[in-house]
Amino acid sequence: MKKSAKAKSKTRSRKSTTGFKPTKLKLLIPVPSDIAIAQAGKLKPILQVAQEAGLQERDLELYGPYKAKVHLDVLQRLAKRPNGKYIDVTAITPTPLGEGKTTTTCGLSQALGAHLGKRVFTCIRQPSQGPTFGIKGGAAGGGYSQIIPMEDFNLHLTGDIHAITAANNLMAAAIDARMLHERTHTDDEKFARLMTRNGEFTDAQRARMAKLGIKGKTLADLSLEDKRRLFRLDIDPKSITWQRVVDINDRHLRRIQIGLGDEEQGHDRITGYDITVASEIMAILALTTSLADMRARLGRMVFATDTRGAALTAEDLGIAGALTVLMKDAIMPNLMQTLEGTPAFVHAGPFANIAHGQSSILADQIALKLVGKEGYVVTESGFGADIGMEKFVDIKCRYSGLTPDAAVLVVTIRALKMHGGGPKVVAGRTLDKVYTEENLELLTKGAANMARHIQNAKKFGIPVVVAVNSFKYDTPAEIALVQKLAVEAGAEGAYNCTLWMHGGKGAIDLAKAVVAAASKPKHFKFLYPLDIPIKQKIETIAKEIYGAAGVDYSPEAEAKVELYTRLGFDKLPICMAKTHLSFTDKPDIKGAPSGFTLPIRDIRASIGAGFLYPLVGTMRTMPGLSTRPAYMDIDLDLKTGKIKGLF
Amino acid sequence: MKKSAKAKSKTRSRKSTTGFKPTKLKLLIPVPSDIAIAQAGKLKPILQVAQEAGLQERDLELYGPYKAKVHLDVLQRLAKRPNGKYIDVTAITPTPLGEGKTTTTCGLSQALGAHLGKRVFTCIRQPSQGPTFGIKGGAAGGGYSQIIPMEDFNLHLTGDIHAITAANNLMAAAIDARMLHERTHTDDEKFARLMTRNGEFTDAQRARMAKLGIKGKTLADLSLEDKRRLFRLDIDPKSITWQRVVDINDRHLRRIQIGLGDEEQGHDRITGYDITVASEIMAILALTTSLADMRARLGRMVFATDTRGAALTAEDLGIAGALTVLMKDAIMPNLMQTLEGTPAFVHAGPFANIAHGQSSILADQIALKLVGKEGYVVTESGFGADIGMEKFVDIKCRYSGLTPDAAVLVVTIRALKMHGGGPKVVAGRTLDKVYTEENLELLTKGAANMARHIQNAKKFGIPVVVAVNSFKYDTPAEIALVQKLAVEAGAEGAYNCTLWMHGGKGAIDLAKAVVAAASKPKHFKFLYPLDIPIKQKIETIAKEIYGAAGVDYSPEAEAKVELYTRLGFDKLPICMAKTHLSFTDKPDIKGAPSGFTLPIRDIRASIGAGFLYPLVGTMRTMPGLSTRPAYMDIDLDLKTGKIKGLF
Repeated sequence: MKKSAKAKSKTRSRKSTTGFKPTKLKLLIPVPSDIAIAQAGKLKPILQVAQEAGLQERDLELYGPYKAKVHLDVLQRLAKRPNGKYIDVTAITPTPLGEGKTTTTCGLSQALGAHLGKRVFTCIRQPSQGPTFGIKGGAAGGGYSQIIPMEDFNLHLTGDIHAITAANNLMAAAIDARMLHERTHTDDEKFARLMTRNGEFTDAQRARMAKLGIKGKTLADLSLEDKRRLFRLDIDPKSITWQRVVDINDRHLRRIQIGLGDEEQGHDRITGYDITVASEIMAILALTTSLADMRARLGRMVFATDTRGAALTAEDLGIAGALTVLMKDAIMPNLMQTLEGTPAFVHAGPFANIAHGQSSILADQIALKLVGKEGYVVTESGFGADIGMEKFVDIKCRYSGLTPDAAVLVVTIRALKMHGGGPKVVAGRTLDKVYTEENLELLTKGAANMARHIQNAKKFGIPVVVAVNSFKYDTPAEIALVQKLAVEAGAEGAYNCTLWMHGGKGAIDLAKAVVAAASKPKHFKFLYPLDIPIKQKIETIAKEIYGAAGVDYSPEAEAKVELYTRLGFDKLPICMAKTHLSFTDKPDIKGAPSGFTLPIRDIRASIGAGFLYPLVGTMRTMPGLSTRPAYMDIDLDLKTGKIKGLF
Repeated sequence: MKKSAKAKSKTRSRKSTTGFKPTKLKLLIPVPSDIAIAQAGKLKPILQVAQEAGLQERDLELYGPYKAKVHLDVLQRLAKRPNGKYIDVTAITPTPLGEGKTTTTCGLSQALGAHLGKRVFTCIRQPSQGPTFGIKGGAAGGGYSQIIPMEDFNLHLTGDIHAITAANNLMAAAIDARMLHERTHTDDEKFARLMTRNGEFTDAQRARMAKLGIKGKTLADLSLEDKRRLFRLDIDPKSITWQRVVDINDRHLRRIQIGLGDEEQGHDRITGYDITVASEIMAILALTTSLADMRARLGRMVFATDTRGAALTAEDLGIAGALTVLMKDAIMPNLMQTLEGTPAFVHAGPFANIAHGQSSILADQIALKLVGKEGYVVTESGFGADIGMEKFVDIKCRYSGLTPDAAVLVVTIRALKMHGGGPKVVAGRTLDKVYTEENLELLTKGAANMARHIQNAKKFGIPVVVAVNSFKYDTPAEIALVQKLAVEAGAEGAYNCTLWMHGGKGAIDLAKAVVAAASKPKHFKFLYPLDIPIKQKIETIAKEIYGAAGVDYSPEAEAKVELYTRLGFDKLPICMAKTHLSFTDKPDIKGAPSGFTLPIRDIRASIGAGFLYPLVGTMRTMPGLSTRPAYMDIDLDLKTGKIKGLF
């Protein structure tokens, strides 16, 4: 730490070349709660943050004084500017407590921007409100490495998730209403008339005509059979994959029966709710590259097959335009700031198992232009590197065209000891003493997990810097051992970080190493090409990244391979829905196992988002509330207007 | 019209005394679609609108360039300023097409502000997104009398309705989770420990202790029996009145069975969804007068009774603080503008049957201070005057302490002819020719409906000005007849208005008459005092306002009268849930019927909002989607970024 502190005093006084003024931290010991630090944080007006980042007032839609949305046409304006360096923060296989990826992402940015005088942007995910009111634990980083205002970050922000909820559920209502109307109106001729306005077709109807090979300018040009094909979707109720969503931990909605009202009699069915961030629309928000691309992706979303087995899309339903209208503001990235005043985009937050778990492509693209050639964009990928980084590369980078310059692998001594055979780590329970006392043996054994992740990153051609997110009970010998083993495994280096306790000052060595690693020549490559068969893609990930000997498919999965190949969805990348707590499908198997067989229970498709997701085990897409949920501590201080009890 | 046009040219050039610059309209004939007019409308930056209205930059939270939330502390700053005149726009018993209340509200404001040089504020409701994507038809006014940007108005606006959805559904999830946990944890001692953090009580737990007469500082001070009473709510599942909500027309959610998942087995129950604007939290948003008041009202919301028959509240559930946090931004009124650049608050939009159907008290209070002594606040009450105005007076004004200075009763020749016996008016069908040709006989007969509403308003001591919202096929003789009959019934006058076609210019005579009426001495009174029995309040409304001879109570209603009296809820005002299409409970009975018996099917309670609502017939709280819903026409023009097909 002494070294870092010195480095800092040298750099802090250096005048930034970008007009950027760092926000000075007043570090307290003991470190106060996250919300206390966040509320004591000095906020620059977001207009100043924007201007320092190279944005103009007309590029912004302000949402109060400390948040703004950024118009996408910034991308056109800066099209010719070279991109900055692109840094992905990932982690080893984590404990259930998490290893501090977001804290590292924020703290590293603070180090680069506020201490090394680099142009920098942080790009991270917007969290779901479910955990905010369910489990105590924020997603804005922690300690002195946070995004502020953390209350806005963890609550409505600018309403993007609410827009997704609205769009997702409008589509769900439309599906059930359409089935009811198709069954109720048995006269094909009359139904066709009802579905047009004065016999004119909508754009969506014309799109469906093109797909079905039906020609005509108005309804009168169509045969009865064509009218039937055009207007009756003949949705197979059993094939519906579209669920309703709510951004709340409401476990009683996991499986429900709808349509029990007197006026819907005979139109009941079993369905369920997911939490909003599991919606395909969230994955689309994260992967889209323009308004036109989002409109097209929303149109391509498949919600069911018809009774003849053909895929039915949002476009067939005639709802893709309305969904785009609901999402037109959400597509703009949200500008916020870190505790040390560096700029941050908080945008999109899809699930990291059934989806790819990354913040938005658009935020990264804009940020890379804004920081320019000499600058750095620090982003984060969900879960451990076996899932997060692999999807970052093979899904996100594939759709964005961007390539990373370096990866930061976050490790904790605690997690490595767990991988070495330490007792189970459980949230809310006191840590076993092997975690709070020096134990080089467990650490050495557990470092195999870190080594596998480092080697995996190198398969993508990405240089890896290890960030040791250290705790007060980690010993110098333990940290030195991790540093040695990391370098032996192929990392550029490993650095002790105290970002939680010291903010950017606690990550100066890491930041310097990242700068060095990112300046190396690029040898980036995808893990697999898109034009190989579905099974071959799955097997490549399983063997190359997880260390599996082979893959076992259930009959359902085999059937889906066949179905998706027949429907032409086999050219999509693969998004493995696997536990993040192990390289295998079993959360309890730690370390770096090999020789196992990875079971594929089923395969699902997010055609609009653009990936197939094999289910490795059961994925929960709707959390529950505990006996004593976090909402019990949350209230508004009526005197100050400040939120209390948030974390 | 000629007279109005002249009056306008005189006043338009007059320099406003307030620094207000009207936005000039370019009136086109034929009148374009609402969205075409709205998108062609010149928007002032909202900061300018705010400054012209007397607000400072620090009073605002900007939401993009054309919307802003206004901080409530404006009320403290302006506390000593006298209020402006308070004008309520209401209507006769409408046809299903609506008679143009919002158009009149906007156009009258435009006339007062842009043509007569008065300080003015429009205060109206935020519409639900359900109808926006369901039935074609906006809620932002129409023609040249609208609130803009109309797309924002009809879509997310600043997220208030989304916040209500989130808060309402968090509470719903909490109720079901609590029942599950109380049943699962059978050990009282252990359950009590789980419900505290280190044995400490939350504020909500202390509030429940006070209510139950339990004393103690920590868990250790309590007897097992006290722990049991404190932590076990013993919710009677059959008594739960709290529904989930979604701001979408999703009829399949009207009645559903939840908790069918494997892990919730045995915890299933039948419940349903309402549209979000039917949530009690929406009614609270509309009736609250401060952050502290909202916190208290949210805490008082009753969601069920326990197995011993005691009312259970959000405070008992420990969730009122979290709900307040979710609603802390929504409580601030949203500033927008009319097509002629006068300021408007768009804030809250509760149902007009099961709730009171009025925009927020806080918006009115702030607006009345901002316009000051010589100014005018024009607000609107939902449905016809028998419901809207009565609730405006007896519920909204009672909670706000504000009293209206004049009422504007909107009539159409079309609706009066319908009341006189004209054929049924159905949305989407061509009007019968009695409505498009002169027919003084039907009109004379139908004017009895208008007369009843005028006389009702006078029972509250409010002077009434009639606004004839005229159509191109209304004849001069018809308009003159309405004017004569209105004055005979006690109105201050009746004025031909062409607000749809001409904006404020089409309501100058009306505006002048409103100015004159509002300057008369006040004789305002409530219809009933709060301290009479529930039945007496219901009967007063039924007889005095509806013209009923008496009231008939179902056994359920009788039981509720008894229950609510026992629980101490009998001092609340009454919010009749009755059809707006008739003075009676039967939508088909037009005109001004009397001598009928009003049936009360049941009585429900919104204790947090602060009213009891007797059900006169069945009220639908979740609309459906038609065979061809509006969403089919809605899309984004990818070249211009503009919304098309909205209305």
